[in-house]
Amino acid sequence: MIRAGIVGGTGYTGVELLRILALHADVEVTVVTSRADAGVRADALYPSLRGSIDVVFSLPEVEPLAECDVVFFATPNGTAMLMAEQLLARAVKVIDLSADFRLKDAKEWSKWYGMEHTCPDLIAEAVYGLPEVNREAIKQSNLIACPGCYPTAVQLGFLPLLENDLVDAKHLIADVKSGVSGAGRKAELATLMSETGESFKAYAVGGHRHLPEITQGLELVAGKSVGLTFVPHLTPMIRGIHATLYGQADGSLDDVQALYEKRYADEVFVDVLPQGSHPDTRNVRGSNNCQISIHQPQGGQTIVVLSVIDNLVKGAAGQAVQNMNLMFGLKEDSGLKIIALYP
Amino acid sequence: MIRAGIVGGTGYTGVELLRILALHADVEVTVVTSRADAGVRADALYPSLRGSIDVVFSLPEVEPLAECDVVFFATPNGTAMLMAEQLLARAVKVIDLSADFRLKDAKEWSKWYGMEHTCPDLIAEAVYGLPEVNREAIKQSNLIACPGCYPTAVQLGFLPLLENDLVDAKHLIADVKSGVSGAGRKAELATLMSETGESFKAYAVGGHRHLPEITQGLELVAGKSVGLTFVPHLTPMIRGIHATLYGQADGSLDDVQALYEKRYADEVFVDVLPQGSHPDTRNVRGSNNCQISIHQPQGGQTIVVLSVIDNLVKGAAGQAVQNMNLMFGLKEDSGLKIIALYP
Amino acid sequence: MIRAGIVGGTGYTGVELLRILALHADVEVTVVTSRADAGVRADALYPSLRGSIDVVFSLPEVEPLAECDVVFFATPNGTAMLMAEQLLARAVKVIDLSADFRLKDAKEWSKWYGMEHTCPDLIAEAVYGLPEVNREAIKQSNLIACPGCYPTAVQLGFLPLLENDLVDAKHLIADVKSGVSGAGRKAELATLMSETGESFKAYAVGGHRHLPEITQGLELVAGKSVGLTFVPHLTPMIRGIHATLYGQADGSLDDVQALYEKRYADEVFVDVLPQGSHPDTRNVRGSNNCQISIHQPQGGQTIVVLSVIDNLVKGAAGQAVQNMNLMFGLKEDSGLKIIALYP
Amino acid sequence: MIRAGIVGGTGYTGVELLRILALHADVEVTVVTSRADAGVRADALYPSLRGSIDVVFSLPEVEPLAECDVVFFATPNGTAMLMAEQLLARAVKVIDLSADFRLKDAKEWSKWYGMEHTCPDLIAEAVYGLPEVNREAIKQSNLIACPGCYPTAVQLGFLPLLENDLVDAKHLIADVKSGVSGAGRKAELATLMSETGESFKAYAVGGHRHLPEITQGLELVAGKSVGLTFVPHLTPMIRGIHATLYGQADGSLDDVQALYEKRYADEVFVDVLPQGSHPDTRNVRGSNNCQISIHQPQGGQTIVVLSVIDNLVKGAAGQAVQNMNLMFGLKEDSGLKIIALYP
Repeated sequence: MIRAGIVGGTGYTGVELLRILALHADVEVTVVTSRADAGVRADALYPSLRGSIDVVFSLPEVEPLAECDVVFFATPNGTAMLMAEQLLARAVKVIDLSADFRLKDAKEWSKWYGMEHTCPDLIAEAVYGLPEVNREAIKQSNLIACPGCYPTAVQLGFLPLLENDLVDAKHLIADVKSGVSGAGRKAELATLMSETGESFKAYAVGGHRHLPEITQGLELVAGKSVGLTFVPHLTPMIRGIHATLYGQADGSLDDVQALYEKRYADEVFVDVLPQGSHPDTRNVRGSNNCQISIHQPQGGQTIVVLSVIDNLVKGAAGQAVQNMNLMFGLKEDSGLKIIALYP
Repeated sequence: MIRAGIVGGTGYTGVELLRILALHADVEVTVVTSRADAGVRADALYPSLRGSIDVVFSLPEVEPLAECDVVFFATPNGTAMLMAEQLLARAVKVIDLSADFRLKDAKEWSKWYGMEHTCPDLIAEAVYGLPEVNREAIKQSNLIACPGCYPTAVQLGFLPLLENDLVDAKHLIADVKSGVSGAGRKAELATLMSETGESFKAYAVGGHRHLPEITQGLELVAGKSVGLTFVPHLTPMIRGIHATLYGQADGSLDDVQALYEKRYADEVFVDVLPQGSHPDTRNVRGSNNCQISIHQPQGGQTIVVLSVIDNLVKGAAGQAVQNMNLMFGLKEDSGLKIIALYP
Repeated sequence: MIRAGIVGGTGYTGVELLRILALHADVEVTVVTSRADAGVRADALYPSLRGSIDVVFSLPEVEPLAECDVVFFATPNGTAMLMAEQLLARAVKVIDLSADFRLKDAKEWSKWYGMEHTCPDLIAEAVYGLPEVNREAIKQSNLIACPGCYPTAVQLGFLPLLENDLVDAKHLIADVKSGVSGAGRKAELATLMSETGESFKAYAVGGHRHLPEITQGLELVAGKSVGLTFVPHLTPMIRGIHATLYGQADGSLDDVQALYEKRYADEVFVDVLPQGSHPDTRNVRGSNNCQISIHQPQGGQTIVVLSVIDNLVKGAAGQAVQNMNLMFGLKEDSGLKIIALYP
Repeated sequence: MIRAGIVGGTGYTGVELLRILALHADVEVTVVTSRADAGVRADALYPSLRGSIDVVFSLPEVEPLAECDVVFFATPNGTAMLMAEQLLARAVKVIDLSADFRLKDAKEWSKWYGMEHTCPDLIAEAVYGLPEVNREAIKQSNLIACPGCYPTAVQLGFLPLLENDLVDAKHLIADVKSGVSGAGRKAELATLMSETGESFKAYAVGGHRHLPEITQGLELVAGKSVGLTFVPHLTPMIRGIHATLYGQADGSLDDVQALYEKRYADEVFVDVLPQGSHPDTRNVRGSNNCQISIHQPQGGQTIVVLSVIDNLVKGAAGQAVQNMNLMFGLKEDSGLKIIALYP
């Protein structure tokens, strides 16, 4: 039985980890921390967990966490980098769902996240936890930087085109729409239901923190520099990300469809839909799946890739558990055989 | 391995049965019928099922269904009564999620459902599938009439009061709110998003089909006639039922709270919340749980019971599987260890 | 031209006042205060107002407000009572949308609102601004206590029954559902879209601040004490209140229907729907209307009244303007000829 | 007083025309047709209209319509072309909200709309009713082809760039998101709340009917052929369109911002937001406004234009009334001084 700890158990990715791990046959959640709610039962804060888990929130201290086999950080940015080193030193595997170890360039990280990186040495050690790209490295790693939600949807959508140099890498466009849970569980005006319900908007068009992460990932597989315009939007629903990706490409749609199907044939969580399909975020809601379809409107040069995930699962907690499964030699889909909640 | 068939696999209760049964360790879904979609893969119609189930819709005919161990009817009212007898004769257990066998009085049934009952002899044989009341009878039965969604939420909320004669049975009020999936997967103006989104209304205040079903159930446990005002409402969400129940009662809230906790102490799917709580439909979304809390505003004579379920799970498909588990001697929560999807 | 001031222009009732008054032919909004946003144009905060109004938020100080003919308080409870006296002394009419002057009993007020009332002398002077009850008094008054949103929907629904002593006043039930904008524009976890979207719940069943206000209003027209169980709920939409009211009554539905139609025949904003109707909150969204229908399920003794309003209009800003129209001798519907936004 | 008729009064654009025209000081709605609901009062079908309009639905026949000064067609495609000629011959002005006269090439029209055009001679006579482009022609015309909702949002967003040849016209991308009311008031599975609520998807990526309309409009102002990739999406809300437009352009953002501000300085319904803004569909909900902002992410060559409208107002009924105002020499915003409903 793997003893798992969660630092920051009161945000949406924290409670989503609890939802998944509480039913994971090989895992026992032994520690969940929350500075604000220490002493409170997790299921008192989240009645959806009643009957499934007995854990009580504790203070975020190294000692009890060091007894775990693996610790997940479901914290705001800037927290994992303060504790990771101590846990690794105690032979605890660390899976960080925040952004602390995602960017390989610490200066770039500081620029986008507005603080100094306190632990730059670990950046090189960290493996970017996108199993569809880094599976073998993940298996060997003790420190995983889980991808962001937007980066997961965009990278899985673009990868086959870039790996095969089929697209003009200088002019990529990612028009991406997210449900509001992506903004987290924080008391903020902007994500009140009265503010976001029944309305649609773009935000951060000038520059979003996930841009350098996506670019870094795409450049790695492309083997060259990449030019990406990334426009995130807020859509009036709770869960789900829909990426609409545009690239200039040669080649027929049939070939591209075949390429995608081959690329993801062995990936249990990436599903290339039949030609002509349009994925719907509801069809992955609550599951760890990414569904993708490819179009070539009017037979022209523009390839349109549609890629959907649940931002809290494949975009966060589910992917984190997928990484854990790989790190501990479990079946990759252990605890993740979840069918999306439709309707 | 239990071979299960589903008649009417293309409605919301049908696809919800598929979601649950596809992951049930003891069940293999061998037949799913759909007159309109015969020949089509289930996961072509419901991409949420891709990777989880291989079944193809077939025509609703007795022969392949008779090879099953159990057949679920997720059909409009009036269909199960046409096929149940033949299946029972072939030693197939039948679980009907429609209303065909819920009312013990065939004339009353005809009045509310607007058609003759073609199979009145089976009504007596059918067991009303509310395990919290009829568990032992369900285990012995081959024909289950699964309760409606409103009746499940209302009965579980009122039962302890009526069983103990603590409430004025002549003046009960059930003000109940349902998400729109309760209206089914039918092309109708009234349930378009543009018609039901961002709006709230009562409907069928003059008389709803679930009224005689609820009254029948309450009278059975009360041992006397019951007077119930039942007002259903449509609330702008997809899943969930919230029943707000009012009764005139003597006795302190502490005693009533204790009574409810005791009554449901051994019920795995009925959860009495701590005093002072307000259940939230989201906390049971996708799960088979019923969460209940009890209030006594201003310490007066009016007891207010709040009872929430997911109408498609505890109010339909989940309860059907719970019945199946009992009928086949499985653990009652087999395949039903599902944690609600929050947020 | 009436010069109007608004204290607290950045909440939902404040911006709703701006929406209505900006198009009111007889009113010019000359002052809008906001401590936090002083110096900012109103349409910078609320781009929906661009092109319609030029006002800039100022600090909430008596001096500029005293130049107005009327001042609306769209503030949290406890603010109007600090400024009303000074403004009245300067011959400014005051319309308070908060709760400061609603309860005639200052001690009762303190109990429910958790603070001392600093201005109890004015309570007697204040007229409760429900025009359908107090029209003549409103015309003569300089200080209006605008009713709360729940109290407006519930009182308009119950009034004809109580005025005519047709109902058992000791056992009234008001099961009321509100959209989330009723919670105001405040950064709070509980009203995030991820928390309230796709979910339904009751709250404050033990006791809500609007209870004494409703009871006071009902007792006034009943001429005797009233027993009310009031259960508020949060429904996943932005605007709208739906009150489902239950009373034990003698008399036929036809008579009650006729009574309601007669009672409200001359009320421009109260609309009794044809017998058998179910009002829908969307049909009053954005308008100052209250739509009401009456039912008598199964011909029994329980009368069910359905009453819907837009909580921000007839439940707040619209009713405030209706009061202003009366106070200044304008047509009662000046600036309020708004048709609900459907769909 | 202008006597107005509406053919097809029971769809969302029809009832939206009623909402606007009922309050238009210069218009009296004398005829509203509905084959299915002839004889029924409009406010019986749409209780939001109670108290505002007395009209009764009549059969769609030429005779009573010929008594009108103007007739609006709010019909499915293929109806206006059957009646327009007769009405024009009777000196009735015709404003068609459907697609019948939008495309100048009748063969192209037949290809996209799947039927023969019965009235190709009138196509040349029809003026495309986008006032911001065709104002003077509209004033002289008796037959207006009102633009589609997507085409309005996309053209208003791209116009200044194309008029000034500032963008690579061969590689334009329009990623557009629509609320579900755009699908109309039809009993269809695909737009049930259970199907579209809480989910996001693209559709018709292979080719949508609005593509040739948009291209035709853009080519006219560009004076050359245009290459457009148009991807429509369905977003879980009722009203609103958000167009995210991408083009490769030289020139600084400051210059482009200034250009847009100058281009639309005299347009009462097009509002260029301050640099750095992100328009929100809620801020135009129910109003005839289009709000636009322009971005140049990372100072690169890609210009991103954000353009929002209410699909039923500026995208349909409001724009139709704007056209009517021009045709009858009224102020362009008569009856259209509506402030968006926020929140």
